[in-house]
Amino acid sequence: MLFQVEMTVKLPPEMPAERAAEIKATEKAYSQELQRAGKWRHLWRVAGSYSNVSIFDVEDNAELQELVSNLPLFPYMEIRVKPLCRHPSSIRDDDS
Amino acid sequence: MLFQVEMTVKLPPEMPAERAAEIKATEKAYSQELQRAGKWRHLWRVAGSYSNVSIFDVEDNAELQELVSNLPLFPYMEIRVKPLCRHPSSIRDDDS
Amino acid sequence: MLFQVEMTVKLPPEMPAERAAEIKATEKAYSQELQRAGKWRHLWRVAGSYSNVSIFDVEDNAELQELVSNLPLFPYMEIRVKPLCRHPSSIRDDDS
Amino acid sequence: MLFQVEMTVKLPPEMPAERAAEIKATEKAYSQELQRAGKWRHLWRVAGSYSNVSIFDVEDNAELQELVSNLPLFPYMEIRVKPLCRHPSSIRDDDS
Amino acid sequence: MLFQVEMTVKLPPEMPAERAAEIKATEKAYSQELQRAGKWRHLWRVAGSYSNVSIFDVEDNAELQELVSNLPLFPYMEIRVKPLCRHPSSIRDDDS
Amino acid sequence: MLFQVEMTVKLPPEMPAERAAEIKATEKAYSQELQRAGKWRHLWRVAGSYSNVSIFDVEDNAELQELVSNLPLFPYMEIRVKPLCRHPSSIRDDDS
Amino acid sequence: MLFQVEMTVKLPPEMPAERAAEIKATEKAYSQELQRAGKWRHLWRVAGSYSNVSIFDVEDNAELQELVSNLPLFPYMEIRVKPLCRHPSSIRDDDS
Amino acid sequence: MLFQVEMTVKLPPEMPAERAAEIKATEKAYSQELQRAGKWRHLWRVAGSYSNVSIFDVEDNAELQELVSNLPLFPYMEIRVKPLCRHPSSIRDDDS
Amino acid sequence: MLFQVEMTVKLPPEMPAERAAEIKATEKAYSQELQRAGKWRHLWRVAGSYSNVSIFDVEDNAELQELVSNLPLFPYMEIRVKPLCRHPSSIRDDDS
Amino acid sequence: MLFQVEMTVKLPPEMPAERAAEIKATEKAYSQELQRAGKWRHLWRVAGSYSNVSIFDVEDNAELQELVSNLPLFPYMEIRVKPLCRHPSSIRDDDS
Repeated sequence: MLFQVEMTVKLPPEMPAERAAEIKATEKAYSQELQRAGKWRHLWRVAGSYSNVSIFDVEDNAELQELVSNLPLFPYMEIRVKPLCRHPSSIRDDDS
Repeated sequence: MLFQVEMTVKLPPEMPAERAAEIKATEKAYSQELQRAGKWRHLWRVAGSYSNVSIFDVEDNAELQELVSNLPLFPYMEIRVKPLCRHPSSIRDDDS
Repeated sequence: MLFQVEMTVKLPPEMPAERAAEIKATEKAYSQELQRAGKWRHLWRVAGSYSNVSIFDVEDNAELQELVSNLPLFPYMEIRVKPLCRHPSSIRDDDS
Repeated sequence: MLFQVEMTVKLPPEMPAERAAEIKATEKAYSQELQRAGKWRHLWRVAGSYSNVSIFDVEDNAELQELVSNLPLFPYMEIRVKPLCRHPSSIRDDDS
Repeated sequence: MLFQVEMTVKLPPEMPAERAAEIKATEKAYSQELQRAGKWRHLWRVAGSYSNVSIFDVEDNAELQELVSNLPLFPYMEIRVKPLCRHPSSIRDDDS
Repeated sequence: MLFQVEMTVKLPPEMPAERAAEIKATEKAYSQELQRAGKWRHLWRVAGSYSNVSIFDVEDNAELQELVSNLPLFPYMEIRVKPLCRHPSSIRDDDS
Repeated sequence: MLFQVEMTVKLPPEMPAERAAEIKATEKAYSQELQRAGKWRHLWRVAGSYSNVSIFDVEDNAELQELVSNLPLFPYMEIRVKPLCRHPSSIRDDDS
Repeated sequence: MLFQVEMTVKLPPEMPAERAAEIKATEKAYSQELQRAGKWRHLWRVAGSYSNVSIFDVEDNAELQELVSNLPLFPYMEIRVKPLCRHPSSIRDDDS
Repeated sequence: MLFQVEMTVKLPPEMPAERAAEIKATEKAYSQELQRAGKWRHLWRVAGSYSNVSIFDVEDNAELQELVSNLPLFPYMEIRVKPLCRHPSSIRDDDS
Repeated sequence: MLFQVEMTVKLPPEMPAERAAEIKATEKAYSQELQRAGKWRHLWRVAGSYSNVSIFDVEDNAELQELVSNLPLFPYMEIRVKPLCRHPSSIRDDDS
């Protein structure tokens, strides 16, 4: 089941650079693990911003909550979620 | 080059049902033609709405304008566009 | 799987009273059928408005889309959807 | 008398982890006490967020204020309240 | 139990003047009946607008819905509701 | 001359509890003094919030500014003001 | 007593040109009468818009309501009102 | 050439009182100098707020930027600018 | 003197196609005349929309108002204006 | 390929003046380097603000992201991006 998740990172300016780098590294590893597991199907940068557009493929709402709330950057992000489903005009078999 | 395009359809309530059906049929054909051409890469319905989330793959801004402004439903839609690019944490070769 | 759905009805003022009554009657029947089927779990009126707060219990996003987009009042409503899941502090077994 | 209450938690990033854990534990206990007393009828997590959707069942506005303003997380939450009442299409006896 | 209700009237410009006058007259009579019954405790015009600020005194949310949704101008108003209760610093006995 | 004033208190989380208690006590005394003087005619808590709805009765805009800007909590509040006047449908002699 | 009033005109596109010209002529006459009477102290066009910024000088809120609600364009305008008073840094004697 | 400038002051709560008083004194002197020079034509307090409505009379956009960005409170204000010009219904010779 | 002007066209869906074509043709001619006169310095389409971003070069606010309010599409557009001036980091001689 | 980029600088008030000056100097140098390279085609100050309106000319979305995210002030700015393309009414050869 697919969800579009849009994330905007807002790190507090006073966070030490090392701490920020550490969180970002953990975030990257976690994100790539979920991508390899097929849970985080797409991940794009929004050009000119510190935001991304993502497509998650999960079992249900509970799994979405589990994956998203465990993001290392979760406390520092504004997140918008939209549930997706097959569009009647889509010709792609795997877009649902 | 990728763009996220979010479209919300707002047909005027007074539009005759036949006219609406006609526009929607043309829209579907046009949309599937662009999908087959690889220009409209993803198309999802946002559940519980008359909206979609789409990913376009175009040569440049001008082609995006040409494709979107020729949508038969263009005069009846609210449209939001975000330019996308490769995310440094992405592991998918074709997400850029 | 649960979703909160908030609906606000905006009937065009020029709609004939009979037509409005007809749509509302069909909406009521459809709504009660979904309630009896266990799909529309809760339905409350927001006091002082022509809005409701609803809880849907569906198989997946696709079923949510099917049920909501078939509402007779669908073309006349503003609809906001939020995916829900079990809260770690909840003590109710059936709130998930 | 029912109210929908939507709460979004915004803990200041600089709050020590122990202090945050302490407040959350007190919040959980308080919340479960109100649930057992039948005052906090439903409590759901909004998937992909640090927000919840709740249904309170109280005597009157004054009791709502008392219960909500005593939440340990109250100073750290954005809260939206909507008064609810029976919907004419509802078939559930206890949804009012 | 008190509620603040803010109403803004938006009559469609194409409504015939007679029809508008008729609705406003019915609204006035209905409003004054509720004021005499003690249900509509205060009614002020917001200067420079076609809006009012009102205080309703009702048994519960259901009565608020009944009174407000029966306003003759209800289909033509934007309405915002806030549940009120006694303020701990108030010195007026009847402001609760 | 009447004004509706809506105030939402936003104390900085890092303010020491004693300092907050001190300001609130001064605020309460000041508020009750204005109520006794007939300047602060109504004061209600908005249920489920740290906000109030107030009705001020002042000589003119200048007095409103003097009274409101001297509130001890003034630097910590979001404040919205609406000028009120007699509503043509009001039956209360003192609501103007 | 001064008020800033911002007005944006939104004439319905289907209004016949003659009817629009008639309303505008009446509006102009009414506006100039109030200016000559010293009630409408300033009137500026916001460049690039069909909006104005105005300063009214009235006895009280009731007079503001009377003057503004009698504007011939009143049913076709969005209006925002702010009560003004003397600024402690002002050096102009008549700006209050 | 006239501009409406609306300024809302948001001093950080942690700024020492002396520092705040110092900035405000400099601001007042600077403001009165510009008023005497005829550049800052009007200055009103918005009643019930820490905001003002101002009318600037400058040579061009560049002078507006120079005057406004040199305000001692500039880093602590939200500022909205609207270019003004003569209104065709104005009867005041100097309102342009 | 430069202004950024953003225009979004919203033609009423019920406008006859011929009438729309006529207005657009007049708009195009008018726009190109202003471009040739050096008044409308830049004109870009926002990709994926019926909006443009424009840079006007005018004598003063009054000329901006005259040029913009005479646009044939003026009654059908949402328009946002920002006064521009030379940026201290700009290296282009003509960007002011 | 052109993009409109609007940037608003929000430096934290507690940043030491030297640190701020340092970032601004680096920003200026970086900005002028991009202007000389033809990548940052226009740069205007919005009068009365700490904002700019810019036109970037880049190869694609990825280059836009690279240039913008490397701005020294990037962590302290709110940034809005709009993809631009040739307008059918433009007469300037280089506005595309």
